[in-house]
Amino acid sequence: MELFPTRDLRFLLEEVLGIQSLFEHACYEQHDLDTVRDTLQLAHDIAMEQFLPIAGLCDEQEPELVDGRVVLPEALSTAVGAFVEAGFIGAGFDEDVGGMQLPYVVTQAVLATFAAATVAPTSYPGLTMAAASLVAAHGSEALKEQWLPGMLEGRIFGTMALSEPQAGSSLADLLTVAREAEDGTYRLVGNKMWITAADHDLSENILHLVLARIEGAPAGTRGISLFAVPKRLPSGEANDVRVVGVNHKMGYRAAVNTVFALGDEGGAVGWLVGEPHQGLGYMFHMMNEARIAVGLGAASLAWAGYRHSLSYARERDQGRPLTRRDPTTPQVPIVQHADVRRMLLSQKALAEGALMLSLYAANLVDEARIAREAGDETTAGETEGLLDLLTPVVKAWCSHYGLRANEDAIQVLGGYGYTREYPVERIYRDNRLNPIHEGTNGIQAIDLLGRKVPRGTGAPVLLSRIAETLAAASGEGEALAELAAGVQQSVERVTGVTTALMQLGATGQAEAMLANATPYLHLLGHTVVAWLWVEQARAAARAPEDDFTRGKLAAARYFVRWELPRTARWASLLEPVDRTVLDTDPAWL
Amino acid sequence: MELFPTRDLRFLLEEVLGIQSLFEHACYEQHDLDTVRDTLQLAHDIAMEQFLPIAGLCDEQEPELVDGRVVLPEALSTAVGAFVEAGFIGAGFDEDVGGMQLPYVVTQAVLATFAAATVAPTSYPGLTMAAASLVAAHGSEALKEQWLPGMLEGRIFGTMALSEPQAGSSLADLLTVAREAEDGTYRLVGNKMWITAADHDLSENILHLVLARIEGAPAGTRGISLFAVPKRLPSGEANDVRVVGVNHKMGYRAAVNTVFALGDEGGAVGWLVGEPHQGLGYMFHMMNEARIAVGLGAASLAWAGYRHSLSYARERDQGRPLTRRDPTTPQVPIVQHADVRRMLLSQKALAEGALMLSLYAANLVDEARIAREAGDETTAGETEGLLDLLTPVVKAWCSHYGLRANEDAIQVLGGYGYTREYPVERIYRDNRLNPIHEGTNGIQAIDLLGRKVPRGTGAPVLLSRIAETLAAASGEGEALAELAAGVQQSVERVTGVTTALMQLGATGQAEAMLANATPYLHLLGHTVVAWLWVEQARAAARAPEDDFTRGKLAAARYFVRWELPRTARWASLLEPVDRTVLDTDPAWL
Repeated sequence: MELFPTRDLRFLLEEVLGIQSLFEHACYEQHDLDTVRDTLQLAHDIAMEQFLPIAGLCDEQEPELVDGRVVLPEALSTAVGAFVEAGFIGAGFDEDVGGMQLPYVVTQAVLATFAAATVAPTSYPGLTMAAASLVAAHGSEALKEQWLPGMLEGRIFGTMALSEPQAGSSLADLLTVAREAEDGTYRLVGNKMWITAADHDLSENILHLVLARIEGAPAGTRGISLFAVPKRLPSGEANDVRVVGVNHKMGYRAAVNTVFALGDEGGAVGWLVGEPHQGLGYMFHMMNEARIAVGLGAASLAWAGYRHSLSYARERDQGRPLTRRDPTTPQVPIVQHADVRRMLLSQKALAEGALMLSLYAANLVDEARIAREAGDETTAGETEGLLDLLTPVVKAWCSHYGLRANEDAIQVLGGYGYTREYPVERIYRDNRLNPIHEGTNGIQAIDLLGRKVPRGTGAPVLLSRIAETLAAASGEGEALAELAAGVQQSVERVTGVTTALMQLGATGQAEAMLANATPYLHLLGHTVVAWLWVEQARAAARAPEDDFTRGKLAAARYFVRWELPRTARWASLLEPVDRTVLDTDPAWL
Repeated sequence: MELFPTRDLRFLLEEVLGIQSLFEHACYEQHDLDTVRDTLQLAHDIAMEQFLPIAGLCDEQEPELVDGRVVLPEALSTAVGAFVEAGFIGAGFDEDVGGMQLPYVVTQAVLATFAAATVAPTSYPGLTMAAASLVAAHGSEALKEQWLPGMLEGRIFGTMALSEPQAGSSLADLLTVAREAEDGTYRLVGNKMWITAADHDLSENILHLVLARIEGAPAGTRGISLFAVPKRLPSGEANDVRVVGVNHKMGYRAAVNTVFALGDEGGAVGWLVGEPHQGLGYMFHMMNEARIAVGLGAASLAWAGYRHSLSYARERDQGRPLTRRDPTTPQVPIVQHADVRRMLLSQKALAEGALMLSLYAANLVDEARIAREAGDETTAGETEGLLDLLTPVVKAWCSHYGLRANEDAIQVLGGYGYTREYPVERIYRDNRLNPIHEGTNGIQAIDLLGRKVPRGTGAPVLLSRIAETLAAASGEGEALAELAAGVQQSVERVTGVTTALMQLGATGQAEAMLANATPYLHLLGHTVVAWLWVEQARAAARAPEDDFTRGKLAAARYFVRWELPRTARWASLLEPVDRTVLDTDPAWL
């Protein structure tokens, strides 16, 4: 069987999201579906030829710090080179800054393809894309001119340097200081932690985007500014930045993660990006894209585990059907055992549901842009509100359930799945990062319930889009109507719970309102994914019937029947808010 | 804080299980609670001093095959030596074969202590205990005399050699052949796979207990015999057994796992254990104990992850309470954040619930023995029936939910939890083995629903024991009555579902009956663990109130309120049986 069929992604992009409509608008009119298909095919070919074969090696040959420099396996350099060569870093950037101006959703599908093959190496170009996007959005003309072309061409790579040892989730506690120099640049001094890709030889230079406080800035999040701090200065001299340690991780190993010191010799030279004290806002713009990317990466790994374990289950003979136990007859492929099929169908429902959710969110970026460029501020605002609402869901839901899928991928392979000879245990280890980085899933849940739902504009937009789908599906035959009815029940749970929680918030009971934020995220997440499964099922029902479309309908049914009933439990913990956790004193643990 | 307080295990043994009553019976009358406490304290001290410090090293220095010999880290040899020295291998064996004749449940509590400190090294003595138990139960007098003393003294270690490359879960397909020699011994030829501890220098000799077919034996499971095959023959000569490869695993690395060839030079010398063709039955006797041990090991790792992450959460300052966001005030320990407390309380509920379940099952071994020796065959039979029923639940429930707990342990530590500098990622990797080995969890579910429930005698015994607890708890105050009411609802779900499924089985619909065996195991498992949490809560309510007992009551409440509602979903998949998975054609995946 084909390991990662391009039809899987094309179905989502073309038949469910209908991205062909994007090309009717000015900003994407230079492209069409053929460009998309060619781009995805190219990504697929490079991923299969250059990334998949080095997956094991990238795990075993952990990056090392040698004389203050990070040394990566050479094969990684070749693979990343092929990615750069194909122009994928600039694919999503506008033509006027040297990009290809492909829709954002297409660039994300490209990344999904690479992540499924081997995720860790994609961090290097991925971070570069994110950093370049930040420079393009907030940098001065001079800064853009200085750095953007090199970044889009892959000669200069990027990083995001936020965390510090005392400030991981709590960025309010950043201590790195920036002092203004006479020439208007800054000198930065401080220590950064958990910085991915802070040193390597994959590019000529590295541009670190660093959060720091200008001397005298206010305490907390309102005193944080953003700086561009290159590894090498434009003069060619080394800047005063130094990797002082590498973290040894459970997985995702080829993406070197470092502890990194600024200003050990007096001060690292940095350029202010945008306005003083606005750094966290800028960074959150990038963080939102990063969170979509984390969700998509987790979805891709879920998909990878599913496809690898499916391939194994079709080949591996073991045991016999319940109805034919005679030991003199041949054994059968394990995919024929119901419990193995359960683990595969569950993976399919979670993985393809997660891919759909991430691509749906990515498509909103394009929708919002189109609306804004067409002067339709209402639609643009609504779309962005929906994207804001969904961002923590994409990040947390995909990473949580992506791992669940990977757990089953290992289980399908049994003992073999537990060995490093097969990819599934590595995929699990890689994916275990995703619930943690770019804001832990617990923080996503609080962002969703404490900020995005009460203060954002996305909730009504979401509900009306879901209602539209369900209304349509109800009239499209028995199978779709059954799915729609299941989702409708969850929607009612979400709305009831949300009203009750907002009431708590409005009456000064924020602590109780947020106490069970995590079950709330799961409740909303499952409802959203189920809704998008109805969309997948509708697209499958429209297409000519074959094994692919039957599989989509089976997975949609599985999600609604097996997964969606979980929402009853989450709702019961939220309305009324169960106080068991809140009332547990830390001393009792 | 104390990392692994002995009070945790003593509470379960003394205050919940009341093992002091065991010492009123002839077979254990030479012991008392003081012996148990001293034994647990000794185990704790050796585990903390010898096992905990080498946990990281045991993971990093993977066993190697050098010139056909397995080389282990030297520190492991010292630690295992201390275990042997303390006499723990023979602790559970009767005095007449050279053991200490401690109750089985106490020996399991000892193993839990070591497993929590570092699990993989415990495999060597653990397998030896299992193998010795098999020789003691089924070996001839000559065989016992030959091997048992050395095994109990730790001079000879043991293994279990079941699987082969084509016969993992399907033991019916074993191909290893045994030919009888003129002296009544056998010559074995074949290949074994996944054999733990098949070579090392921790003992003078190794006794492999090998499943093979005597030439001309019937096909399938009815033609399998058990053989004792030493690494070195009694003459001192090497036997014809050879490790030909080691598997590189995700975790549990210090427990070397091998591919192993018998008879490359003509035939490995083996002694038949018990009767011909009865090998699988004997092995299953040992496998049942092994399955309890797997459940207990998984529970211990869940407990270890909980305790490590609790210790971290009390020390690590990050962020501020919702009610005091001022960034100029100090950060607080993360245990004060509700979402972190949720992850800790959930771990506590799962880990201590799993420990309780495993020890409850171990205690049934002692109960059955006492009843049998007292001539009370009815009680003995009932107790063994209950143990049979619970064995697959112990194995699968503890390993499944133990992993869930470990996932949260990593999450509590955030980025640090993802590094190999902290123990929680290793604990997760170690624990990932447990749903796989000694029969995958899918196989446990089919064993439970297809065999233990319909053909065993345990189900009514279980229901009457649960009813007894709930009746008592209902009258013991509001808090306990609330717990009892929650469990009662699940019990009704289990009984309804079970009746419906047995009906299907009785009408020839075995395929449908077994299709959703996994949700059935979860449904029954959660109900059983909730029942045992009521027993823990009752014991806590009887004891003087302190943080420990308040924590027990909070965890019981958490289990009933947060975990038990899951049973509604599982029941809905079983009555009527949802056919989504069964009706999914493998070609659609």
